[in-house]
Amino acid sequence: MTYRVMGVDPGLTRCGLAVVDIEPNRRSTLVAVGVVGTEAGRSLDERLLVISDAVDSWLDLHKPQVLAVERVFSQLNVSTVMGTAQASGVVIVAAARRGIPVALHTPTEVKAAVTGNGQADKVAVTKMVTKILRLDTAPRPADAADALALAITHAWRRGVGQQGAAAAAGSITPAQRIWAEAEARARRR
Amino acid sequence: MTYRVMGVDPGLTRCGLAVVDIEPNRRSTLVAVGVVGTEAGRSLDERLLVISDAVDSWLDLHKPQVLAVERVFSQLNVSTVMGTAQASGVVIVAAARRGIPVALHTPTEVKAAVTGNGQADKVAVTKMVTKILRLDTAPRPADAADALALAITHAWRRGVGQQGAAAAAGSITPAQRIWAEAEARARRR
Repeated sequence: MTYRVMGVDPGLTRCGLAVVDIEPNRRSTLVAVGVVGTEAGRSLDERLLVISDAVDSWLDLHKPQVLAVERVFSQLNVSTVMGTAQASGVVIVAAARRGIPVALHTPTEVKAAVTGNGQADKVAVTKMVTKILRLDTAPRPADAADALALAITHAWRRGVGQQGAAAAAGSITPAQRIWAEAEARARRR
Repeated sequence: MTYRVMGVDPGLTRCGLAVVDIEPNRRSTLVAVGVVGTEAGRSLDERLLVISDAVDSWLDLHKPQVLAVERVFSQLNVSTVMGTAQASGVVIVAAARRGIPVALHTPTEVKAAVTGNGQADKVAVTKMVTKILRLDTAPRPADAADALALAITHAWRRGVGQQGAAAAAGSITPAQRIWAEAEARARRR
């Protein structure tokens, strides 16, 4: 069973959006990728509405099983951090309104999952995402690549390719997980 | 013409909501006040959805002409600031989706407008809000009083009681403002 994940790298100027299908064997296929956002000259309410409308459309069109969003930290004491947090709130509530589960992952988790190195730079992340998704050209800008990396990270961290598709369904109980693991072991024999 | 303002003091645990009608002579009347929010144990998406649903209901029920929201700063380096920013994003976009203009005011602006002192404490703000709205009992908790103070501040800063109701309509042109000011001067003679 294919696991469909939407990844979002939130931001007011550039909000990366991506949808990836991940198969039980971890094979990952690009469904959609893009960037939405507005120039800094627009009012905050207009800017948030553009992001909200885009995420609503993507969720309705692609119907992901889960939404993976980059976790925002206040320690990043830059002028854009509040706008990024406001955008992430808008993105998260769009999924919640549809009953789609939301998962948060830190940049370090994403870099570690995709490249094997939690300190990897944007070039390395883009390169690995391009390879994992078997793309002819690298996804640009970096926000788009980050959204793809988030989607892949979420699926892999949920155990796709390790515990079978059941574990990837996103809402299994501990009993189902034990069963899925036992089944996977049985298959390996 | 009465000017109806909804004020929101954003937060995940306690989000203050208030609706106030302000007349051209600055007489302010409480329409509704309350607090919405969730315990810290719930997931972020659930918490944001509770706030989003409440704000949607209030906007549809009370139909304010403008939404006044407390401006959130990243300088407040406390653990709740990111959640507050995410909540404010959800609140702002709810108004934007309905074409309701959004105004942001800092805590200092609110304290100064309501008490005359930008450094006033919560007790002083609550006391003045109670007096301005001619309430028998003080609004509680502080988040509810803050939301009321935000609504009053917005109307007063927009010039209700100074330039007549036209200036309070929230979308006047520079020419209309000059005309309203001239009209106000003429009335004073």
